[in-house]
Amino acid sequence: MKVNIILSPNNVDDLYYTAKTTVVIDVLRATSVILKAFDSGAKEVVPVGSIDFAMKFSVNAHGGQTLLCGERNTQMIEGFDLGNSPAEYTEDKIGGKTIILFTTNGSKAIVKAKYSKRVYIASFNNLSKMAEHLIHCDTDIEIITSGAHGVFCLEDTICAGALVKKMKELKSDLELNDVTNASLVLNEKFGHDINKMMRECEHGVLLKENGLESDIEFCSTIDNIPLIPYFIGGEIKLLVEENKPNNEI
Amino acid sequence: MKVNIILSPNNVDDLYYTAKTTVVIDVLRATSVILKAFDSGAKEVVPVGSIDFAMKFSVNAHGGQTLLCGERNTQMIEGFDLGNSPAEYTEDKIGGKTIILFTTNGSKAIVKAKYSKRVYIASFNNLSKMAEHLIHCDTDIEIITSGAHGVFCLEDTICAGALVKKMKELKSDLELNDVTNASLVLNEKFGHDINKMMRECEHGVLLKENGLESDIEFCSTIDNIPLIPYFIGGEIKLLVEENKPNNEI
Repeated sequence: MKVNIILSPNNVDDLYYTAKTTVVIDVLRATSVILKAFDSGAKEVVPVGSIDFAMKFSVNAHGGQTLLCGERNTQMIEGFDLGNSPAEYTEDKIGGKTIILFTTNGSKAIVKAKYSKRVYIASFNNLSKMAEHLIHCDTDIEIITSGAHGVFCLEDTICAGALVKKMKELKSDLELNDVTNASLVLNEKFGHDINKMMRECEHGVLLKENGLESDIEFCSTIDNIPLIPYFIGGEIKLLVEENKPNNEI
Repeated sequence: MKVNIILSPNNVDDLYYTAKTTVVIDVLRATSVILKAFDSGAKEVVPVGSIDFAMKFSVNAHGGQTLLCGERNTQMIEGFDLGNSPAEYTEDKIGGKTIILFTTNGSKAIVKAKYSKRVYIASFNNLSKMAEHLIHCDTDIEIITSGAHGVFCLEDTICAGALVKKMKELKSDLELNDVTNASLVLNEKFGHDINKMMRECEHGVLLKENGLESDIEFCSTIDNIPLIPYFIGGEIKLLVEENKPNNEI
């Protein structure tokens, strides 16, 4: 069972993912928000790669029970219903709804991985549950860190390293390559205080400058939402029948 | 003075480099080979982005005093004069000659950085000299690690970290971002035995499998070639007048 980490969606093309089992991480904040959305009872999340597509999709789909959500360069988008702060995704606002999500990095990274056999959504919030499920899958794993505008970002890499560390605790003989070992080293260095790392990293500083420090608190919480969202047929759903025989997800 | 590291040429487009001061690293083996070429008296090195272009260029340019050199996926290319092993670049073979160099990652990374104000060529072989020169430049620095087929590679990242470490020893108040700090951490972990790291990394293992273990010995040697090659007008030349007033290179 090999585990590879891809440090930027730009590093591979769409077809790279064909038939692979992929995990997408965008800790600040897309994948953390997706977990919060499902924890608050969202029906599904539709990640989109452009604001135009989000607008068009929201008009026609899902019988009007949709919310346009997300951000562009940390800011809420005009005409959208919600931004990209986990705190906004409360049960009264999004329970039973379809969330159309556009974000600067994360939603695009998920859409890019569309040719995978399976795409999972991970953040610190579901770290242990995701590690358990991936080991259960018993197949080679590609972990894609969404990064920031196509380049390396520390918090996603640390989260990927933390995920692999948890996987290793469950299965010691994983085959790790150079980038995965490097991510483990970075997690070893910075992972003892995730909240501190997140407050001090470039993206964390940017969020603080935009008055969004409370988002960091949520996004750096480990294992508070033990759910497994997965992307299939253009939508992210919640995996609820994990132990069903012949489960293909 | 900011120092940024780009972990793959795929992470930015050509125009990103406009007016920047860039350092390209491809430890195994392109930038190490370029240093060896100049140490053995090469007149200039012409990095090219495709084998076709290398073929065409070699027919017309430089009055017949050219050698076609490089590799594709570690292997020597049919019709080429030399491969990509530093040991091949001896004075009797290449002294006074123009080297046209195509390699899988490094030569392409150099060509991609063409819109930079200045592009320098670095490896472990010229680490201290390059650090001194960059501090002397006193401008923001972009360090691009060529990677392997567009993705992260450990040895280039460690070399970038080692270069920044040496720069910090000369100027303690460098502004470092997340990726640069991460590279310093990786150098701290793996940099105490460069030769061991290079023998064990993915690319090192591939070279050993191809009978090229002796290349690793050369490419992991620190500061044995204190030269500064720079890329200008499509050619890599040797910087010889470093202390000239108003030096623009």
